[in-house]
Amino acid sequence: MQTVFHLIADESAQRATALTIAQNLTEDDSVDVDDIAIVAQADGIEPLTAGGDGSEMVESLLESGVAVKACGNTLDLKDLAESDLVEGVETVPSGGGELTRLQNEGYAYIRP
Amino acid sequence: MQTVFHLIADESAQRATALTIAQNLTEDDSVDVDDIAIVAQADGIEPLTAGGDGSEMVESLLESGVAVKACGNTLDLKDLAESDLVEGVETVPSGGGELTRLQNEGYAYIRP
Amino acid sequence: MQTVFHLIADESAQRATALTIAQNLTEDDSVDVDDIAIVAQADGIEPLTAGGDGSEMVESLLESGVAVKACGNTLDLKDLAESDLVEGVETVPSGGGELTRLQNEGYAYIRP
Repeated sequence: MQTVFHLIADESAQRATALTIAQNLTEDDSVDVDDIAIVAQADGIEPLTAGGDGSEMVESLLESGVAVKACGNTLDLKDLAESDLVEGVETVPSGGGELTRLQNEGYAYIRP
Repeated sequence: MQTVFHLIADESAQRATALTIAQNLTEDDSVDVDDIAIVAQADGIEPLTAGGDGSEMVESLLESGVAVKACGNTLDLKDLAESDLVEGVETVPSGGGELTRLQNEGYAYIRP
Repeated sequence: MQTVFHLIADESAQRATALTIAQNLTEDDSVDVDDIAIVAQADGIEPLTAGGDGSEMVESLLESGVAVKACGNTLDLKDLAESDLVEGVETVPSGGGELTRLQNEGYAYIRP
């Protein structure tokens, strides 16, 4: 099974909850999940920025093998470059496009 | 591919973000999306009302070929008639039923 | 068709809206839904606790045949025991795992 988390909350606490739920899924042995991805957009991009609020959790998730993807439209809007992101974060053209593509491939969708 | 956006946020800025993400998807050439729908319920109904906050974005999405659907239960609860809605908006019996039906047809689900 | 609702909102009004949308789905004859589940985690657990804010709605949903599931990680974090929950609520190892499993079985996902 595969799961994508949609990270878009504008509050720090809500984003931390979202990242914790992703982390918990990597540790739940009762379910056989092969791939976990996070697609971040709008204010959800914050923890993907180097040194940003929550970025240590993103680094830890990347180390656990979670794929972390930043919405390119959001980067443009917030005037961020790929070099502003935590190392290992990928960029995708649009968050909505990537979420569609992954669900089409069979990923479950969770929006904490 | 097909995508349905769930519009339910109670804050104006969050609803504007949701509609922008839908608009961005219509413009993302990297993903082959045939149909985009928006199902609005609870406070998410506001931009679907004629002259309501965000209604110009809904008009623009309708022009782009996006299907926009209002939850009938919400209309009852808010004492709104179909004639209060932006022209071109459809009404469905329940938002939950429509979101279930569309996902069952293969639509990806995004809740900004 | 089958539908799972993700109950995670931190505000009482938002949780009540989520539970109302689930209730409305049990009453929408225009869509053939066989199974409805609710997976609650983080602050969404509140209405699942005995005597908690919104617990009468959860009791009513259980009576309507809706399956209500509490995230075990959330119970640990909030120092809650299964005996603190409304009778009939099940516990699952993780909310993320259960939401993945149900979508993998074909459940539509709705996050009010």
